[in-house]
Amino acid sequence: MKAFVFNGPGSATWKDVADPRIEEPGDVVVRVDAVTICGTDLHILKGDVPDVPPGTVLGHEAVGEVVEAGPDVRSVRAGDRVLVSCITACGRCRYCRQAAYGQCRGGGGWTLGHLIDGTQAEYARVPHADLSVHPLPGSLPGGDAVLLADIFPTAYEVGVLNGRVRPGETVVVVGAGPIGLAAVATAGLLSPYRIIAVDLAAGRLEAAKHFGADAVALADEDPERLVADLTGGLGADTVIEAVGVPESFELCTRVVRPGGHVANIGVHGKPAVLHLEDLWIKNVTITTGLVDTSSTPTLLRMAAAGRLPTSSMVTHTFPLDAMEEAYEVFSRAADTGALKVVLGSPRHDAVSLRPTEGA
Amino acid sequence: MKAFVFNGPGSATWKDVADPRIEEPGDVVVRVDAVTICGTDLHILKGDVPDVPPGTVLGHEAVGEVVEAGPDVRSVRAGDRVLVSCITACGRCRYCRQAAYGQCRGGGGWTLGHLIDGTQAEYARVPHADLSVHPLPGSLPGGDAVLLADIFPTAYEVGVLNGRVRPGETVVVVGAGPIGLAAVATAGLLSPYRIIAVDLAAGRLEAAKHFGADAVALADEDPERLVADLTGGLGADTVIEAVGVPESFELCTRVVRPGGHVANIGVHGKPAVLHLEDLWIKNVTITTGLVDTSSTPTLLRMAAAGRLPTSSMVTHTFPLDAMEEAYEVFSRAADTGALKVVLGSPRHDAVSLRPTEGA
Repeated sequence: MKAFVFNGPGSATWKDVADPRIEEPGDVVVRVDAVTICGTDLHILKGDVPDVPPGTVLGHEAVGEVVEAGPDVRSVRAGDRVLVSCITACGRCRYCRQAAYGQCRGGGGWTLGHLIDGTQAEYARVPHADLSVHPLPGSLPGGDAVLLADIFPTAYEVGVLNGRVRPGETVVVVGAGPIGLAAVATAGLLSPYRIIAVDLAAGRLEAAKHFGADAVALADEDPERLVADLTGGLGADTVIEAVGVPESFELCTRVVRPGGHVANIGVHGKPAVLHLEDLWIKNVTITTGLVDTSSTPTLLRMAAAGRLPTSSMVTHTFPLDAMEEAYEVFSRAADTGALKVVLGSPRHDAVSLRPTEGA
Repeated sequence: MKAFVFNGPGSATWKDVADPRIEEPGDVVVRVDAVTICGTDLHILKGDVPDVPPGTVLGHEAVGEVVEAGPDVRSVRAGDRVLVSCITACGRCRYCRQAAYGQCRGGGGWTLGHLIDGTQAEYARVPHADLSVHPLPGSLPGGDAVLLADIFPTAYEVGVLNGRVRPGETVVVVGAGPIGLAAVATAGLLSPYRIIAVDLAAGRLEAAKHFGADAVALADEDPERLVADLTGGLGADTVIEAVGVPESFELCTRVVRPGGHVANIGVHGKPAVLHLEDLWIKNVTITTGLVDTSSTPTLLRMAAAGRLPTSSMVTHTFPLDAMEEAYEVFSRAADTGALKVVLGSPRHDAVSLRPTEGA
């Protein structure tokens, strides 16, 4: 088969590799019908994630059809259309028993396209299939569903749920890339009073309005003052970090109200300064987290019911074998306006390749 | 009356001042029968809390008898023996309505001995008395009860409850001063599997064992390794910071397990480094907080039932007019072995002056 293989920092190639096969009794092999590219894949390509061995097939998000299931698999069978979650889960360890699948100690967690071959390929092996793939509602196009493999559950669990968004409260989302936009959209499920989006790019703030932001601020035009003005000087109840740099995290800790929550989603490469001399007395709660994908079945129901703006997130579609071009477009998002790019097989899931409008 | 008056950084004096009187209809005036000194008082004396005006009577903890109550006070009356909480609360603002009294926006919060005259005096005015003083169980000696004005609710709410201590889990308490020891003791109420105390001083670690620590580690003798050894390499479920310096906070973030809680109690004067490059993926929750004293009635019941080791915390007692000597002993705790010092009036609450044994 063809797959997108990491050669080492700075290089990856769409090329022939051996077909994946069942290796453990709980595995499935999935024919990949739709796949997307994550900011984390770009980090890997840059060499920021040194535990990815050269030779690894990249990608941790997919929609496809089960073509073979190991003898222990109970929840899906060959022929089922499934979502491949970015998190695989043994289901047996102390973390899985508490639905903290992202921290699985039994060989799961974030492994696909990281520690084992991933999904940017014609076929993918998925271990621990009972808890790691999700049967897809028939009505949900693959190009929409694939966004539920990572970014929507990440934004919802690590941002909105960890940040305790509640009806009537004020939410600030710092960063209006795909994850930030998904945080804006899923924060809306909890009916906050107001969602304020902050980003460096005016275009992304326009997208944020489309996804449900009530107010927006350019990051370099005093977002602290806007938040203060809109909250009577108090600060926001929930602040979601969706960038991954120290400056944006530190902004979050300045705009949160006493007693409020800062939920970090960003993937950070450097430490931040935590101003405990101001914060010790403020009763703030700061959370970090890798997604567990425990919310994925819920989000799949919501998406199938048309209650998540997945389609608006997909700005570019490509056939599967245009992987290198898709990476190019996604990595130059500031120029191309890309939010999420989806690649698919026109033979099997044509819907994922329909033309989409930018957000 | 006599009171301990802050003259400005570096100086305070036990001297004559005007008697306090009812100023607002919700005030009470309390005759002070027992009072203690807090680490925060030492910070004020050093000049670390610049919003304390010279001329302020220090102290935010007391036990005494109500001698006069304003016309709006409903919950106590003249003659009642009460605990004066370190937190006063208007009961009407958005924070008080959620029992977040420490963040009161209606003139309460931490005001005594900070923004208004405090309790290290023969008499003290307490505003918003209905929510700011607590009737005392008759069986509870004043010298024990006064520890429930601040350190026990602080350790319990900001450390144990914010840190989500649960039965069967592993708790690390960094810092075995009075607050850390109260955290060890109140963590025990939740039946953790193991409590590990960390401090620089061997004597304080002995005290920690007395208060319920199962294992102890000197801070400069690789506490990280001890925690790893005792948790199968995973880290602790809850880590409580009870020092207030960057190094101890950063230690806390290294010994917490993925998915665990770091609860900061320490009063910090400097920022810490938050290693988000390690923590973003660890699903940790970090909390800060000033106490709300919402747990005070509960803790008073527990103390009256003999289920809190309050007496063991009091290493030195003095008459009220020995305030300057008591400060001297408390501020040189490393030499004097002081945990908490209690000052009292032998006329009114002799029990508070009984000889106590060191922890």
